[in-house]
Amino acid sequence: MDTVCVDAMGGDLGSQVVLDGIELALKADKDLQVLIAGNGEVVEPFCEAHERALSLVTTEVIAMDEHPVKAVRSKRDSSITRGCMAVRDGEAQAFFSAGSTGACLAAATLFIGRDKGVLRPALSAVLPGLDGHQTCVCDLGANADCRPEMLVQFAQMASVLAQVEAGCGPKPSVGLLSNGSEKTKGSEQALAFHEALEAAGEEGLINFAGNCEGNDILMGSFDVIVCDGFTGNVALKAMEGTAKYIAASLKAEAKMSPVAALGALMIKPAFSSIAAGLSGDEHGGACLLGVKAPVLVGHGHTSPEAIKNGALAAVRVIREDLVGKIAAQLSSQDK
Amino acid sequence: MDTVCVDAMGGDLGSQVVLDGIELALKADKDLQVLIAGNGEVVEPFCEAHERALSLVTTEVIAMDEHPVKAVRSKRDSSITRGCMAVRDGEAQAFFSAGSTGACLAAATLFIGRDKGVLRPALSAVLPGLDGHQTCVCDLGANADCRPEMLVQFAQMASVLAQVEAGCGPKPSVGLLSNGSEKTKGSEQALAFHEALEAAGEEGLINFAGNCEGNDILMGSFDVIVCDGFTGNVALKAMEGTAKYIAASLKAEAKMSPVAALGALMIKPAFSSIAAGLSGDEHGGACLLGVKAPVLVGHGHTSPEAIKNGALAAVRVIREDLVGKIAAQLSSQDK
Repeated sequence: MDTVCVDAMGGDLGSQVVLDGIELALKADKDLQVLIAGNGEVVEPFCEAHERALSLVTTEVIAMDEHPVKAVRSKRDSSITRGCMAVRDGEAQAFFSAGSTGACLAAATLFIGRDKGVLRPALSAVLPGLDGHQTCVCDLGANADCRPEMLVQFAQMASVLAQVEAGCGPKPSVGLLSNGSEKTKGSEQALAFHEALEAAGEEGLINFAGNCEGNDILMGSFDVIVCDGFTGNVALKAMEGTAKYIAASLKAEAKMSPVAALGALMIKPAFSSIAAGLSGDEHGGACLLGVKAPVLVGHGHTSPEAIKNGALAAVRVIREDLVGKIAAQLSSQDK
Repeated sequence: MDTVCVDAMGGDLGSQVVLDGIELALKADKDLQVLIAGNGEVVEPFCEAHERALSLVTTEVIAMDEHPVKAVRSKRDSSITRGCMAVRDGEAQAFFSAGSTGACLAAATLFIGRDKGVLRPALSAVLPGLDGHQTCVCDLGANADCRPEMLVQFAQMASVLAQVEAGCGPKPSVGLLSNGSEKTKGSEQALAFHEALEAAGEEGLINFAGNCEGNDILMGSFDVIVCDGFTGNVALKAMEGTAKYIAASLKAEAKMSPVAALGALMIKPAFSSIAAGLSGDEHGGACLLGVKAPVLVGHGHTSPEAIKNGALAAVRVIREDLVGKIAAQLSSQDK
């Protein structure tokens, strides 16, 4: 039995969505046990009514707009802090929340701790690409400022994630997100990243394939794309915004033309599934790489399906020993 | 009569597309004259057959993948260098090309020159937003590395563009692209940008409205969004890539389901118009702000319609005196 701790208080849409998602996950995986962190009146009735559901009663909630580090330090009995403490204490092997990404990062770093040798944990998600190819992008926002050696670790860690979660072969190709594909393109910082990644490629630590551009992210041309968390966050949100804009524009066009309206209705299921893929929720959200146990963070604007995917992704990376494989990959560097 | 110089050799799809676009522009605007820069066999037959079309015969072409500055310095008889020289010499009042953006920037800066007081010219485009609201984003890639005072100028220049081209009122709201909407969010560089923009707002130079995120770009929440050219380029290309990915995925879904196929067919015109808006081509591509005459750069993968829009946007900004208004705006700072 593998135990995942799930934050019942995370997400913008209320706890019922999370509980519905947990129910789906428990049905889908008979070897999954869920430790549910949240207010007593939320988690206790659910745990009494469901097998393999254990309650972790907490009294505080960290809101999406709170300062992450301050909130984690002051709200010691929140679902996020207690969830990470439960993982530290071995009561669960992974943590999943659709709550504040910043608070999850802070709590995971503070209570679960970094893997040996990790400079900074980083967020990565498996994004879809053309022809079913998938790409792990890292960092998506954990570190706004990065040093070149951090990018090399992001590449190493995301290369492991690409093999475990995106079905990549043994040497995932790594691209550096820049403003041009040529080696000479980039800000001064990106040029320094390029140099470090190239050197790491020559040492055999990663399979560095050069610079890539924003439009390569969803083209499936690279197995891994690395960048600082500032750039990764802007790019990810720009992509989400584009999908939202296209959906809203199609809706507006449909209002003006009956043909477009009917067409929009007919492609709606296809469009929804494409948009769900883009949000990263099909893969359980973003995975925090470089901490001693799997921590996954889903979208705040979540759904039962996304919660299910998050819980199942968490148990998958437990079973695949993502954390152990990342530690092995990083320690190979020290030799 | 207003004269726009158009590069006949720019774009990936050959000169005929450009000539077709020029023909459309000449038909749409009877006070437009076009000076067409390109190889003799391309431009001369067209100019003989069309009124208000003058030829500027050149013998060299700068390819999309050439090093911009080197190419501009060595190919003195290319359509891009000669086009910018023609603007410098008063033979045309604006230049439009669907060729190498970098070469256009280099040639414009070298031959046309910067406006007085401009630290660095920057690329801006009018992007669509929800409910018909439009946003000018600057810089889209001219300057990979920026100092805070450059961002203030980008905001001032793009605020003028927003009034001239995007129908904004007298005090366009300016957002800073960051990885969070709170003031405290951002890389060290973004925090320095924020400080400078906030100070400029307090001085009344711009209407600074705070940080925004990647998903705000197409939401129409800000009239102007500024960022360094590295971040702007990554965001723009990520948005283009998303539109391309969604189109390709819908096509793939349509192959698997007859309902989706019919739906896709019915929304195709709506989708194409949304995608065209996103590419910036509906507004004639990107405008180089801060040089002494309007220089506009369209997509390499262009169409006659996009070339027409580029030529018409160029003549519009000539008539609106975009350059004079930007100079006035910047000089108000010196007082």
